Amino acid sequence: MEKADRKTRLAVVAAMLTREPGKTFSLKIFCDMFSAAKSTMSEDIALLKNMLKTYGQGDIEVTLGAGGGVRYVPAVTAEQRAGVLDDIAEKLSDPTRILPGGYIYTVDIFSNPKYVAPMAEILAGMFIKTNPDFVATVETKGVALALFVARALSKPLVIARRDLRITEGSVVTINYLTGSSRRMMTMSLSKRAVSPGQKALLIDDFIAGGGTVHALFEMMKEFSVTVVGCGAGIVTRVPEKKQIENYKALLMLESVDMTAEKIVIRPF
Amino acid sequence: MEKADRKTRLAVVAAMLTREPGKTFSLKIFCDMFSAAKSTMSEDIALLKNMLKTYGQGDIEVTLGAGGGVRYVPAVTAEQRAGVLDDIAEKLSDPTRILPGGYIYTVDIFSNPKYVAPMAEILAGMFIKTNPDFVATVETKGVALALFVARALSKPLVIARRDLRITEGSVVTINYLTGSSRRMMTMSLSKRAVSPGQKALLIDDFIAGGGTVHALFEMMKEFSVTVVGCGAGIVTRVPEKKQIENYKALLMLESVDMTAEKIVIRPF
Repeated sequence: MEKADRKTRLAVVAAMLTREPGKTFSLKIFCDMFSAAKSTMSEDIALLKNMLKTYGQGDIEVTLGAGGGVRYVPAVTAEQRAGVLDDIAEKLSDPTRILPGGYIYTVDIFSNPKYVAPMAEILAGMFIKTNPDFVATVETKGVALALFVARALSKPLVIARRDLRITEGSVVTINYLTGSSRRMMTMSLSKRAVSPGQKALLIDDFIAGGGTVHALFEMMKEFSVTVVGCGAGIVTRVPEKKQIENYKALLMLESVDMTAEKIVIRPF
Repeated sequence: MEKADRKTRLAVVAAMLTREPGKTFSLKIFCDMFSAAKSTMSEDIALLKNMLKTYGQGDIEVTLGAGGGVRYVPAVTAEQRAGVLDDIAEKLSDPTRILPGGYIYTVDIFSNPKYVAPMAEILAGMFIKTNPDFVATVETKGVALALFVARALSKPLVIARRDLRITEGSVVTINYLTGSSRRMMTMSLSKRAVSPGQKALLIDDFIAGGGTVHALFEMMKEFSVTVVGCGAGIVTRVPEKKQIENYKALLMLESVDMTAEKIVIRPF
């Protein structure tokens, strides 16, 4: 490629980094691409970091040394965070979402990239320091959220399944009771999915009693994997005592009143 | 915000557009953000489009008139496409992936954003002209691919489920036979998920006999939804006659030889 001017370099690097958040690019890639000196590219990156920060468009992290490079972190400002969560809380407060048994219909929110991507970016920011090897979840409703968290951290996603499928190969299966409704549930994870000694970040869409996440925690133990964090989209106020202790969440479901047709949900 | 110079505007707009592919931003947002005239921002967008194209970093589409604006399309070049698909085909050719019954373990590929995101961008490019209202898939293995296609097109994802869950509300359920193994399967879709008259793009990870995709097609009919396209990650060469006729795919699985421990898979 021929030499590019600074505004071209900045724009193209901004697009490349943002397109693959969490992925580390060596400076050399950009130097070769633009026939630019390393010092020039370093200056560009510093400028770009500052520009993105000024306009609340995330952060660029620079790591030095061998294997080092630059990566985009889709950080959100406090204001953006409040905007996203208030908007989603309002949508979820719609009483037509109330289902028989006092459940809430949330599927549309938790499978729409428009809502899931910013929620995932907020969660990813909360756990980026834990440096997990992978993100784990249980199918199905939490998969989109967990996948976007994995994307923001540039890590693979591991999905524990409810049913047994031949395409998973050999699996480890555990049975457990859900925390809220005390039903017996099953989850399975392929033996090929993870390796002993890895670090897992658990992500789920909804924590009520915490039974499912606790079971996923136990599953990780079966694989000699350390759980470095647990995050959820929504957590219920009741029961206060969950089957897991340390978790972070985006929204708290205060109450669902079927008679008054009222849902109270707010940023956590 | 105070006035920003051209290189700042270009870099920040590049990051904003790339961060939310498919989303249409009105020019006014940028004019306000940078205290810039509309003509200036139009020039910037034209420049940026050209820069991204030169460096194979996707495209910017401009729509005029009321409701118009600019959006990022994560287009891939023919060379990038070949690179991505050759790499994935090579990974999937690893004979240790062979499972009992001649199945292949693909879960790690289809749940890792590193592989799924570029595959989804290629698929999204194939179907962007069909302008679907949503992307539909069947849980679980294809969810990540479908979700990233939905993200690239800035549309919601709709997931048909294998089991019945109270959190889906009222559902429509259909039973069908898989094309390959002739097993009876069930899928359900929440009545709230879609509206009559909408247009659906069907995405799945794997098409063998085509029974699952065909069933999803039938499900869409139940909801008076038009199917505008059908895309898959992998399609098998055998059986040649699938239960659906029009589909596009990224990779073709030619053969799995359990005795010789050999998998042949190539870009479609």
